[in-house]
Order: sequence, then structure tokens, then C-alpha cells
Amino acid sequence: MARDPFVVVGGDAAGLSAASKFRRETDRDVVVFERGRWISYAHCGEPYFVEGSVERLTDLLSLSPADVAERGIDLRREHEVVSVAPGDRTVTVRTHDGTVEQPYSELLVATGASATTDPFDTTLDGVFTIHGLDSAAAVDAFLTPAGEYDRGRLGDGPVDEARVDHNAALDPPERAAIVGGGYVGVEMTEALTARGVDVHLFQRSEHVLPPFGTSVGERVESHLADRGVTVHTGRSVEGLIGDGRIEAVAYDGDRLAVDMAVVGIGVEPNAAILDGTGVDRGPGGAVHTDGYGRTSLPAVYAAGDVATARHAVTGEETWVPLGLTANRTGRAVGATVAGDPTPVGDVAGTAVVKAFDMECGRVGLTDEAAARAAGFDPVSATITAGSRSGYYPGGDETTVTLLADRTSGRVLGGAIAGRDRAAVRIDTLATAIGGDLTVGKLERQDLAYAPPFSPVWDPVLVAAKVVNGRLDG
Amino acid sequence: MARDPFVVVGGDAAGLSAASKFRRETDRDVVVFERGRWISYAHCGEPYFVEGSVERLTDLLSLSPADVAERGIDLRREHEVVSVAPGDRTVTVRTHDGTVEQPYSELLVATGASATTDPFDTTLDGVFTIHGLDSAAAVDAFLTPAGEYDRGRLGDGPVDEARVDHNAALDPPERAAIVGGGYVGVEMTEALTARGVDVHLFQRSEHVLPPFGTSVGERVESHLADRGVTVHTGRSVEGLIGDGRIEAVAYDGDRLAVDMAVVGIGVEPNAAILDGTGVDRGPGGAVHTDGYGRTSLPAVYAAGDVATARHAVTGEETWVPLGLTANRTGRAVGATVAGDPTPVGDVAGTAVVKAFDMECGRVGLTDEAAARAAGFDPVSATITAGSRSGYYPGGDETTVTLLADRTSGRVLGGAIAGRDRAAVRIDTLATAIGGDLTVGKLERQDLAYAPPFSPVWDPVLVAAKVVNGRLDG
Repeated sequence: MARDPFVVVGGDAAGLSAASKFRRETDRDVVVFERGRWISYAHCGEPYFVEGSVERLTDLLSLSPADVAERGIDLRREHEVVSVAPGDRTVTVRTHDGTVEQPYSELLVATGASATTDPFDTTLDGVFTIHGLDSAAAVDAFLTPAGEYDRGRLGDGPVDEARVDHNAALDPPERAAIVGGGYVGVEMTEALTARGVDVHLFQRSEHVLPPFGTSVGERVESHLADRGVTVHTGRSVEGLIGDGRIEAVAYDGDRLAVDMAVVGIGVEPNAAILDGTGVDRGPGGAVHTDGYGRTSLPAVYAAGDVATARHAVTGEETWVPLGLTANRTGRAVGATVAGDPTPVGDVAGTAVVKAFDMECGRVGLTDEAAARAAGFDPVSATITAGSRSGYYPGGDETTVTLLADRTSGRVLGGAIAGRDRAAVRIDTLATAIGGDLTVGKLERQDLAYAPPFSPVWDPVLVAAKVVNGRLDG
Repeated sequence: MARDPFVVVGGDAAGLSAASKFRRETDRDVVVFERGRWISYAHCGEPYFVEGSVERLTDLLSLSPADVAERGIDLRREHEVVSVAPGDRTVTVRTHDGTVEQPYSELLVATGASATTDPFDTTLDGVFTIHGLDSAAAVDAFLTPAGEYDRGRLGDGPVDEARVDHNAALDPPERAAIVGGGYVGVEMTEALTARGVDVHLFQRSEHVLPPFGTSVGERVESHLADRGVTVHTGRSVEGLIGDGRIEAVAYDGDRLAVDMAVVGIGVEPNAAILDGTGVDRGPGGAVHTDGYGRTSLPAVYAAGDVATARHAVTGEETWVPLGLTANRTGRAVGATVAGDPTPVGDVAGTAVVKAFDMECGRVGLTDEAAARAAGFDPVSATITAGSRSGYYPGGDETTVTLLADRTSGRVLGGAIAGRDRAAVRIDTLATAIGGDLTVGKLERQDLAYAPPFSPVWDPVLVAAKVVNGRLDG
């Protein structure tokens, strides 16, 4: 009797990376269930589609169903896995034609994450989360004068036509509130500003982009203000008010009249299909996994935004849903299930974000409180240094925050902001963390220098010099 | 009796970094002898001054004599140290007023390197090496129509007026030969093209920028050709021909009429002041130093372009004269002499260069022959990958060559070329080498991803995936 197939739940980055790698390594069958109509699309590109720098919605697709079939993957769209029976090694799948049981030899849960909206009423017209191509299409249609939407923008894909039609018929907004100053909030601020909307960005805590720390937050706020954005930090939006269509946001006892709102307050793992299985959970309710993507259930793996990972700095379990991790962990599980045990790798929480001309990066632990909470004795510094030799035109002040542990000297994390090649520099710190470098050793790294690209002492090295000096103190 | 001073020979990057760090750490005296009139200037900026992107020659100065005095450093310009008597701990110094003996408690030789010119006649008008501010000023004056030189370009510094006057009176060139396709050659190609000169670049070996390897060389040659440069690779220039002023270059039995030539065929260490001392020499005739910058002579240190260093990949002694190394090793020696023993750090041969819009980087060992010669069993790959998500505008194909050792899996080196933030990415590889990462671990590094800055798999990760796959094979 043939073995049951490798079953993958979720047809995006982690799921299709796993299935593709698996098929490259074996002749065994793999079935991918995707509850929606879209597969393999770039979540991270949605703000740039809205902004207009991406021409067509379908430019955000990576693999087509035909590409997937060509790889020998049995892809079934609009098939929703609703439960897992780990004892029987079966999943229950809901389709348009009813419910079926599918046995598996190994199961990968790659169901991703969804935008959190609680406590906001996102059913009002003009209120959006940015999560999935249908929401990006809806926003794009909404931003266009009523009746003038160019459907060529959508390309040829399985878009939610009714939702596009509904939004295309509405009057476009003049003023938008962005609720939440994380990645999505900042990127949508740029996108909506580019589309001519007056944007008010609300962030509950003291600074936007909290994971990037204060030094980055301050530079981004200043840059957003320069571009005409009104930034409300330390302001909690309590509700979205309207009758049919949004009319205002309520915050801290005040109100601001708006005719659009984007809610970007976070994501939560789509882990409900494992409810009732007794699977171990980790931070954020994500599915606990080990160094090979294994969950606590036999033959059940998890990868991507639904799964936890080990943090490269703390060694603790963490949940950082991001694109590279989804691709890498999915690919590793595909190899492991195919018979080549492959570590999924640690996450360092590396992230970069663009806010107009400002480039920002972060990695590891970016503030002393977080470092202390993780058991370290942090020493940190924030410096600014030129991105190029001072005499060479086109450079910009680059701000670097760097943290190290006083006891071991290890680099714990950092953040970078600046307009000239600042973001890519975070990879130097990420790799320093990956190599367990002390800040003293980081200071002695032979980094690149040429006047158009760096001063003699790269901003990262300047920060290392200062932190290393404080370590000795 | 007071101790004799710390004596530093050379008033540029290494020497003044050492003296400055020393004075920050102690109250002891430090004397810096500089044979020329200029101090603390940016060699690497000279092509950009010639190009016109740096407004004034003196913009290339970092510290003024007054800044140096303010740091408590006894700087003596136009004082040439001609010999060292290590037994007596004295140096002999030639000045305009004769020769004096200066005792030292510790000595730092930071005399730098000079451009090699053999076998070329560089006394002809129109023939230049680019080494020092006076040569940059001379070229700038030469490129300007006779009699029209704007002396405001020079700023207020101790320039060689006679040399400027001589060149300003000559007719500007129409066609230049650049002899040597290294950094200086490529940067001067860009600079002279920007000044309207028809440039012919001659490189003896098969590709320009030999230390960057074939993949980078090919891209740069193609890009130079796109910009109207005539690139002659595999062509040896045998002589510069002319009577008073250069009229032609002779190469491989052929001739090309030119009215300017720039000779950029390499540099040699200015180590002659140690002749007769029996000091140990290393590669290229540079002064042998250990991990703290000590030479084989008691109390004599060397740093910067005159000194050898340990290679981060091979562990062998090497000579790679570059700007960051000069600053870092000088600073470390200053700290060590002041009583805080500080390693000078290894060099990985990290370098970046700009050729018009093309950004190039290299680190470690960039070709299999060099890796085999160093005792490794190299596995390598050259890949191209986008610098941004494919749907995001403004990206460019980035070429990455990566080498690893089959036995240990260690990353040995690599090279990068591309038009979009390619050069800074070499720091990721430099740090991977600094952290002794295997290519498998590099593949799992949590590097940054956002559509404007990187595809999900950064080009460096794509290269690591391919090389790691070949390691297993």
C-alpha cells in the first residue's frame, strides 16, 4: 500500500516552500489545501500596490497554480482544513461540495496569521485592514473617484469582484486615520499620502515602530511630519464611528473627522485548526515548534507565521511572523519530511521598513528593558555618523543604536535609520548576532570603505566603538 | 628624568589615529614627524575631487594642524625621518635646518605606501599617478583649459603651487590612457570621463579589478563600455612615449595616441626608513607585525599601509593597504603604547569600489585558485538575484560569487556587483567571515526583507543556498 501523502495546510510562502522543496527531493505525493482562491502572494507588497508603484495586483503573485502543478504538487484551492485528528492522522476538509477526510503521513500547518481588529468595527465602509490581495484591491478601488476605477489595475486573478465593485462606487476619502504605527501603519501612511489623502497616524505608545526603538521612532516621526503627515503618538484610538461609512475616530476623549481608516494593530496566528488536539502553544498563541519545525503532535509540523521559533539572542521561544522566516522554515520542513533533516534556523527579529525616504532596520533586542527582561546586563549607545565620507555628496546622517551584554560582551541587537543605504546595514548586525560576536570583535571587523558608500568607520563600527568603550567603563 | 616620548613617523591615517588615541589615554608626550606639508587627508577621495563631485581640494582634509595641536600632539611637518637606530632608541630626522636625533621610548612607523611607477616615465607632462593631494591638484589643473584654472578649487592648504601652475598652463587632454584597472584606474576612468576626456583603460590581466574576481570584472567592463569607455583587457602597456609631453602609449606591439596617462599599477610600502635595522619583512616587502602591531624590533611598532596584518580567512600574514585598516591598527597601537594592550584585528581584504552606477564589493578569497593555494578545498557559485522584490521598481540584478571550504563548510570569501545597494551587502559576508560562519549557517541567517530593499531571499542568501547545496553534493 502506498504511503499517505504529505499534507500541507496553506498555499502561501511557508506551505508552498515546503511542498516545492519536498517534491524536489522525493517522488512522494504532496497535497496542499488552501482555503482561499489566491496562492503564493506577497503580503509585503500590498502597500506598494496601493501606493501605485506596483502596476497590477497580480504582479504580487509569485507562483501561479500552473507553476505549482508543474512542480508535481497537488494544490486544492477553496479547500479549508477545519480540524485535525492526530491519532488517526487525518484532516477534515470543507469544500464547496461538502466535507471530506484526508489521511496524511506527515502534516504541515502553514496557515499563517490574520490581522487583529478587536475592538474596532471593520464592517463600516471606508475601514480596512491590509491583509490579503482582496483587501489591497478594495482599498485601491476605494481611493479612486467613484465610477472611475481602472480594472486593469487588478490583472487577471481571482479577485473578490463584489468587494471591488462596492468600493469603486464609493466616494474617495479626503482624510484617513491609520490606527497603529507598526510596519503596516507606516507603509500605508506613505501609500495613502502618495494617493493624495491627508493622513493622521495614531500610535498608542510613545513612538511609532515600537520594535525599532526610540531612536528610529523619533527619526521616522520627524520625517513623516516633513511629508505632511500628522503623527499622533501616545494616543489611543478607542473606536471607529459612523453609520454605514466611517465618519470619525474617537481617541482619548477627542474626535477627528475622517472618511477612511486603516486598522493595523497587529496579527494573530491562524492556529484554530489545531483546537482540541492538545497541541502545545507558545508566545502569542502560536504553535510551538522545535528546531526542525516539529509540533508536540506526532508527524505534525508547523512553519511560517503560525509557528513559534527560537530567538537567536535569547535562545527562548518567540513568535515573529515575517516573510523570510516563512520561506526558510517551510523549505526546511519540506526537506526534513523528505528525509533530509534540516534545521529551520533561529530568528533574530530582523526587519526593515521604508517610510518615504527614510530607511529603518532592527534586529535582536533594541532596548535595555527588553534586554534586562531576557536576563542580560545591557550596555547601549545611540550614535549618528555619516553614511558616506563627509566630502562626498549624497550622504545622510545614519542613526545606530547598539546593545551589548556587559558580562559576555555579546552583541544583543540594534536599530538603524537613515536615508542613504541605512536599511541594508542591519544585515551586518544580524550576521554579527548569528556569529555570536562580541562588540569588541564587531569593532574590529574589516568592513567596507569607499567614499561613495561609507566613511572610513562605518556607522555600525562607530556604534561598536562607543558601546565597547562603555563596556570597559 | 621624564620618559622619552612616543614617536610616530607619518601624519596620516595610522599615525594620527595612534597619536590621538594615545593622548586620550595618557599624559605622556607624543611627537609626530611628517615629511610632507599635508597631514590627515583622504587618499580615497582624490578621484572624486578630480571628477568634480568634491568642491575643494581641502575638503579632503580631516584634521588640521590646529586640531592636532589641540589634542596635545607635537606635530612636526616637513620633518623626514631617514633612519632608525633601534639599539639607541633614536630616529634621525632631516629638516630644512639640518639633521637631528630624536630619542623615543616607543616608535610607530606609519609611513604608508607610495604609487609604483616602474617601468614608466612619469616625468613626461600629462603623466600622473594619483597619490597625494598635490597630484590630485595637478591633474585638476591639467584638465582645465590652459589659463582658465579656478584656484578656488584648491582651498586654503599647502599645495605645491609650482606644480599646479605648470599643469594649469598646459592644454587639456582629449584622450587619456589609464594604465592599470585596479581601484585607482577604475575610479579615475569615471573621473576623467566626467571631465569630458575620452578614456582608454588598459588592464594586463583578463579582467579589470582582479581582486574582485571574474564575475565583478565582467560586469564592470560591460558597464564602462556602456558609458563610452574603451576597455583593453589582456593588454600590457609597455611604455609611455613622448618628448616633453606624452604622445602615445605602446602596448603589445601597437600604439595609441593619447595626450594624458594615469599610471595606477599598484603601491609599495614606504619601509626604507627601517633599512639596515634588520627588521623582519613580510609580503610585498611590508614590515612584519604581530597581533598588536609590534615589529621584530624592540619597542618599534608599525601600522597602516606600511605594515603586514593577519588574514581573517587564511590566518597567514598578508599585506592589504587600505584605509580602515590604517585607522584601526593605528588606533590600536596608540592604545597599546598607552598601556591598554589592544589587538589590531585581522584583515579580510574587504573592499568596495564604484564604477559610474555599478557598485562592487569583495572580501576574503574570491577565486578557487587562491583558495586552493591557501590550503582549502573550495566550492563556489556565482548567482544573480534581484536587489528588491521583483514587482518593486528600481531594483537591479545583483551578482554574487561565494566561496566555501568543502571540508569545514566555512565561508572563505566572495564578491558582489550591482547597481542597487550592492556594495554595502559585502559587509554581511565580511561579518560572516569574522564570525567563522559555515555556509549552511549563513544560509539560515535572519537577514532583512522588505520589498524596497531586498527580495525575500537576499542575493547573499541565494548564493549561500546554492553553495551549500553543492557542498552536500
